[in-house]
Amino acid sequence: MRKPAKSVAKNRGDPAKRSNTRATSVAADDDTEITALNFKPAKLTPEMAAYFDVCKEKVGFVPNVLKAFAFDMTKLEAFIAYRNDLMQGESGLSKLEREMIAAAVSAQNRCYYCITAHGAAVRYLSGDPALGELVVMNYRAARLNKRQRAMLDFAVKLTAEAWLIEESDRKRLRKVGFKDRDIWDIAAVAAFYNMTNRLASATDMRPNSQYHAQAR
Amino acid sequence: MRKPAKSVAKNRGDPAKRSNTRATSVAADDDTEITALNFKPAKLTPEMAAYFDVCKEKVGFVPNVLKAFAFDMTKLEAFIAYRNDLMQGESGLSKLEREMIAAAVSAQNRCYYCITAHGAAVRYLSGDPALGELVVMNYRAARLNKRQRAMLDFAVKLTAEAWLIEESDRKRLRKVGFKDRDIWDIAAVAAFYNMTNRLASATDMRPNSQYHAQAR
Amino acid sequence: MRKPAKSVAKNRGDPAKRSNTRATSVAADDDTEITALNFKPAKLTPEMAAYFDVCKEKVGFVPNVLKAFAFDMTKLEAFIAYRNDLMQGESGLSKLEREMIAAAVSAQNRCYYCITAHGAAVRYLSGDPALGELVVMNYRAARLNKRQRAMLDFAVKLTAEAWLIEESDRKRLRKVGFKDRDIWDIAAVAAFYNMTNRLASATDMRPNSQYHAQAR
Amino acid sequence: MRKPAKSVAKNRGDPAKRSNTRATSVAADDDTEITALNFKPAKLTPEMAAYFDVCKEKVGFVPNVLKAFAFDMTKLEAFIAYRNDLMQGESGLSKLEREMIAAAVSAQNRCYYCITAHGAAVRYLSGDPALGELVVMNYRAARLNKRQRAMLDFAVKLTAEAWLIEESDRKRLRKVGFKDRDIWDIAAVAAFYNMTNRLASATDMRPNSQYHAQAR
Amino acid sequence: MRKPAKSVAKNRGDPAKRSNTRATSVAADDDTEITALNFKPAKLTPEMAAYFDVCKEKVGFVPNVLKAFAFDMTKLEAFIAYRNDLMQGESGLSKLEREMIAAAVSAQNRCYYCITAHGAAVRYLSGDPALGELVVMNYRAARLNKRQRAMLDFAVKLTAEAWLIEESDRKRLRKVGFKDRDIWDIAAVAAFYNMTNRLASATDMRPNSQYHAQAR
Amino acid sequence: MRKPAKSVAKNRGDPAKRSNTRATSVAADDDTEITALNFKPAKLTPEMAAYFDVCKEKVGFVPNVLKAFAFDMTKLEAFIAYRNDLMQGESGLSKLEREMIAAAVSAQNRCYYCITAHGAAVRYLSGDPALGELVVMNYRAARLNKRQRAMLDFAVKLTAEAWLIEESDRKRLRKVGFKDRDIWDIAAVAAFYNMTNRLASATDMRPNSQYHAQAR
Repeated sequence: MRKPAKSVAKNRGDPAKRSNTRATSVAADDDTEITALNFKPAKLTPEMAAYFDVCKEKVGFVPNVLKAFAFDMTKLEAFIAYRNDLMQGESGLSKLEREMIAAAVSAQNRCYYCITAHGAAVRYLSGDPALGELVVMNYRAARLNKRQRAMLDFAVKLTAEAWLIEESDRKRLRKVGFKDRDIWDIAAVAAFYNMTNRLASATDMRPNSQYHAQAR
Repeated sequence: MRKPAKSVAKNRGDPAKRSNTRATSVAADDDTEITALNFKPAKLTPEMAAYFDVCKEKVGFVPNVLKAFAFDMTKLEAFIAYRNDLMQGESGLSKLEREMIAAAVSAQNRCYYCITAHGAAVRYLSGDPALGELVVMNYRAARLNKRQRAMLDFAVKLTAEAWLIEESDRKRLRKVGFKDRDIWDIAAVAAFYNMTNRLASATDMRPNSQYHAQAR
Repeated sequence: MRKPAKSVAKNRGDPAKRSNTRATSVAADDDTEITALNFKPAKLTPEMAAYFDVCKEKVGFVPNVLKAFAFDMTKLEAFIAYRNDLMQGESGLSKLEREMIAAAVSAQNRCYYCITAHGAAVRYLSGDPALGELVVMNYRAARLNKRQRAMLDFAVKLTAEAWLIEESDRKRLRKVGFKDRDIWDIAAVAAFYNMTNRLASATDMRPNSQYHAQAR
Repeated sequence: MRKPAKSVAKNRGDPAKRSNTRATSVAADDDTEITALNFKPAKLTPEMAAYFDVCKEKVGFVPNVLKAFAFDMTKLEAFIAYRNDLMQGESGLSKLEREMIAAAVSAQNRCYYCITAHGAAVRYLSGDPALGELVVMNYRAARLNKRQRAMLDFAVKLTAEAWLIEESDRKRLRKVGFKDRDIWDIAAVAAFYNMTNRLASATDMRPNSQYHAQAR
Repeated sequence: MRKPAKSVAKNRGDPAKRSNTRATSVAADDDTEITALNFKPAKLTPEMAAYFDVCKEKVGFVPNVLKAFAFDMTKLEAFIAYRNDLMQGESGLSKLEREMIAAAVSAQNRCYYCITAHGAAVRYLSGDPALGELVVMNYRAARLNKRQRAMLDFAVKLTAEAWLIEESDRKRLRKVGFKDRDIWDIAAVAAFYNMTNRLASATDMRPNSQYHAQAR
Repeated sequence: MRKPAKSVAKNRGDPAKRSNTRATSVAADDDTEITALNFKPAKLTPEMAAYFDVCKEKVGFVPNVLKAFAFDMTKLEAFIAYRNDLMQGESGLSKLEREMIAAAVSAQNRCYYCITAHGAAVRYLSGDPALGELVVMNYRAARLNKRQRAMLDFAVKLTAEAWLIEESDRKRLRKVGFKDRDIWDIAAVAAFYNMTNRLASATDMRPNSQYHAQAR
């Protein structure tokens, strides 16, 4: 959502005009024009305001996707609850593995916001900048172990051609050591980023500029 | 999740063997083998137990997707919270329109569970059985008004080729009367069913048999 | 073809206008506007008139595809001759199997007319309404035996990527028990519905409304 | 169908072995191994025998597709009746235009038999060898007039993505002068070759070698 | 590049008008309008003039792609140097095999210029006109030995979905006898024609008419 | 090409084993295992040795693609000659624009080597790290001016569906100010990276690790 007072909807339609003014405002505070949609942010509830403060403290900024949801506190809270349990809750998958799925799915869907954010997360959690690049460019070129390769193959097939997933695909995951409970988590993470990729693409959501240089 | 006592995982792998035994158990109580994954359901919290009772009362049964999530109360609650706000909360889109998006997206993804459930919902909410069929077979053949056609075109493009969505696509929605706030909701509903379609396909989730005959 | 006296061609171009008037006329006698093409029906030959009477008696109505062909008796007769031999003649494939191929091919091609008609036929011939739904939603989710699964895999691959069919595909059919003569029939049925799907899609052919509620 | 006495089915499975023996037999009489399927030809009815004689006289040979159908006289007759009315009957489309559709559709489906036969027909009927090549290589590169270009665009879209055909596609045909009756014929010809392409690909049907040098 | 004096750019935009005038000029000397781009040819260097003379002597004409490059001597020389080493230099692949790759890749990309030129080359080098047709229509229908089949499968997969090539694909080549050095050449030839196909398609390059009748 | 003495071909086949040993050798001198192909480098000619020295001086390293070509001096020289004229020669396109095309084409083809190298070049030449990311993630999300957007649309369409390029595509380029001579260059650059992408993917070519951190 961009600041309501500033009517820039037309500018978004004309990339040529838009780029200059935008460059400036981004330089100023990096929080205008998070999406191409123009509607009023809501007032943060105390819980959400506190959560945003935690983000700033821990990550250095509030991820733009949260600001994009901040027009409606019910939606914002539901999104955060679902996401945090999925990505930070207990699981047979490590946090890095979950971020690798997020990144590979986002790459398949060519989602600018999510490739940026989850590519950074893979670089950060793995401590291996090249791995982050590989997963978002073509995970098949990465030197993955069998477990991680099977995991990403499943996630990307589920992304591109979900209707072709069958028992044989689940068997391949079991063969490299995943439990059925883990398969749920692989599916749930891949499915979730198929959702957020589409929300971001539909609204032209822009990632925080800080991601680009993180963990290089 | 199927009942843990009954080890039928192998049967799932061999469709030929599976079909007979399954036909019987479904006739019995229609709640075994909801997915191809084999792991323990959790005990419902009082809130969730109450919610399941409401489902039985209002719809006649607990949708299998909820039973599938019932292995973990945090996940179940987060899913229900997100879904209910999205599909039943206030919106510039009618409930029928939201179900039309769910059905068209699920058809694009050829998801058996979701086509079944949301095709039934479109039949029921519209009172027009043929409309339900049209939306899940090929929405382009339906006699839709311009608003609904633009809405489904956006949702299906977002499903099939999210990376091609641009300002011109959003403009087309505005031209038929959607506000930016409505565009968020179209995107959010389409995105959400891209998530559930994949969860269902990844786990071979089976719809409640009651959907088939509903609202014909 | 719709009745020539009634110039509704323009209405077809504007779905919004069209829907109301159409709803009424369909309710009246269900035989207007079978296709989006506007040209004169021919007079039925005595043989064809008799055949239409048989249809009414046995099925309750004349399938719209036959009415659509009824502008030219040579074409109508040739179509019926080809179709009836294919679908009702002697074959190593049961009538249900041939209808399953028709339904799966039509689903792959997302053809409203043919999914409607052949989905109904599968429900009717199998006595299993859910099977009809499965075959038109995603046959891969159906609990098919190996023979029927191989048969539909071949038919759908032939539909989607005919140029990739090779000896190995035919071998797989032989391995589950099909004779070479049966392979011809699988191919011939799949090929035929690739024809009718396209005739129906090209002309916006509408199925008889009676199909929707059949054999649920 | 190849000659029943000679059991060559196995050779078809191994291209390396097959090629040599085949080269010889083709040189001998060019009528063995018309398809990869091995089953007995039927005895031609007098009418069909006479029709085959006419072919030999007029074209110099019996097209292999007819020999392939010659295992069953009902099927052979039905195929010939449907095909001949379609391609030689009265129509707003010239015979060349109908062959151009056949060739462009077959190219889209990469069908060796049909590209060979209908490419030759376009070269012959147009007297323009390069036109035959253009239509089977990429009709978009041909210098077509607007009528023929619209006709092939419709036929190829119907072939590749039949589910996307809508009123606007039919309008484009009307705009360049096609009557609704002509649109039926464009659709019927394109649809028919989508059938024969698949029969040929499914059975590995081989074209008569004479086509290659025709009308160069 | 067509002759600069003649401003035919507009005609290129309107195929209907264009075809007549073009037919004449082609008949006249077959070297106008080689591409849809209108800019001045350069003066040939003595080396290039000599090379063009060699072409005329050996092939009977200067391939249009060379004339298309003849607006800049550096580019022309670089193209010829790269191409001649690749296609005529020492290699574990025969010249016919290299042309088969060129033809199959060009067919996958539906490039009129390159299918024409390399189809002719395959016919000529193999002495088997039908082989030339098979490779450009659907190489999978050709009776290739295992080596050549694996070679074309690799080349066509590399053309259509380069990002899916992995070690298993290279292994398959090694298994039929290719050395690693040969794999480089297969890749280099397939890659090169992916370049020329696109240059030809981007500029609507027209093949010399002499190719059509060559080696039939 | 990796160092001939060290037989690591088998390790390449097993990613799990490979990763460890590789990580070490890369850390050591970053020039082993440039491709998955195992064959002897040639001795550099004095000219090529000098060129490699220039690379080291100017870029800090010899791009791995050049080392990969260094098994044959004719091929290496031909590649460098073609590439340098194309990317550094006179043109209506700036060097940044040429690199933007290289990056967008490589992203479409999901080529790890080329996305890495040309993404870095775009970051460096533009002085805008985010632009480099945008072009390789989804150029449609970048705020490009009309000229650059049309240029990349053409290059990416040419990459993905070269056979659909027609006069209307060239017209769109002319409309935003490109001369026919520039259109050649856009096509030539896009075509060239369609070649190198495929060489890199076919051989699993690895980019120099220095690219990753460049110009962030």
